[in-house]
Amino acid sequence: MAARIDGDEGADGQNSPTLSFHLDSRLAATSRPLADLPLCQARLQSDARWPWIVLVPRRPGLTELDQLSAEDLSRLMAEVVAAGRAVRAMATAAGRPVDKLNVGALGNIVAQLHVHVVGRRTDDPAWPGPVWGQGEAEAHTPETRALLLTAARVALGFAA
Amino acid sequence: MAARIDGDEGADGQNSPTLSFHLDSRLAATSRPLADLPLCQARLQSDARWPWIVLVPRRPGLTELDQLSAEDLSRLMAEVVAAGRAVRAMATAAGRPVDKLNVGALGNIVAQLHVHVVGRRTDDPAWPGPVWGQGEAEAHTPETRALLLTAARVALGFAA
Repeated sequence: MAARIDGDEGADGQNSPTLSFHLDSRLAATSRPLADLPLCQARLQSDARWPWIVLVPRRPGLTELDQLSAEDLSRLMAEVVAAGRAVRAMATAAGRPVDKLNVGALGNIVAQLHVHVVGRRTDDPAWPGPVWGQGEAEAHTPETRALLLTAARVALGFAA
Repeated sequence: MAARIDGDEGADGQNSPTLSFHLDSRLAATSRPLADLPLCQARLQSDARWPWIVLVPRRPGLTELDQLSAEDLSRLMAEVVAAGRAVRAMATAAGRPVDKLNVGALGNIVAQLHVHVVGRRTDDPAWPGPVWGQGEAEAHTPETRALLLTAARVALGFAA
């Protein structure tokens, strides 16, 4: 399995080989494709303030966790753990190792089921509060984005 | 399996039959015992603003999800889904059905691993933002607390 070759191009995921899965346009606009995991599309959140991966299960029409099968729920949990490892790797690559992982499935603004995995530091701008709804996202430089994507893909077991 | 018989008494969980599990004193102070699930102690968050269950895996020394075995991760996910069902039941019993479930594992303030399962409404005081760090908790009346505990225990398959 290879990471998406269009990973840096801001593709919106509409060309996923999984039938009937459509990525919400707001998720597409605020994150970049990182890798396709067995269940989820993993995406890099476009916010330089935190190392942050969004997992979007590639199943049509999901809004709540209880719509997933037991098997998919176990897959999702495994992918949350893998994304946490990738978030730690991104943070270390950027020279700002993570003190804590935050995991959240909210969906109050974007209904499509998605799970945030966010690396936190005790000196980050929202600590100890949650990151959601805090201020404005800060864009990555292309160089930083490439560094983060590479670190995350290696941590996820993909060729960078 | 029966729900904890000391459920309404504000016990701090230190008497759990699981060896070496100790509930953090801040979790004990901000929530009440609801039921022991296969992995987690389910607790009612002492905040009348939202129907809210906290799940605390009964394993010693946990701070991050990746410290759980794959089997326990699957159990936790199943218990998150069950807690969501119980949150919906509490909200319906209180006459304020839920529009959305929010699930979060943060741990920035209380390090002991715990997962929040919170019922949200589009007219609630923090919508669409997260509930964590928002204002001050409002105490339940004893009558409301009893109603919510009963509804949640029935939804979890326990005798109320």
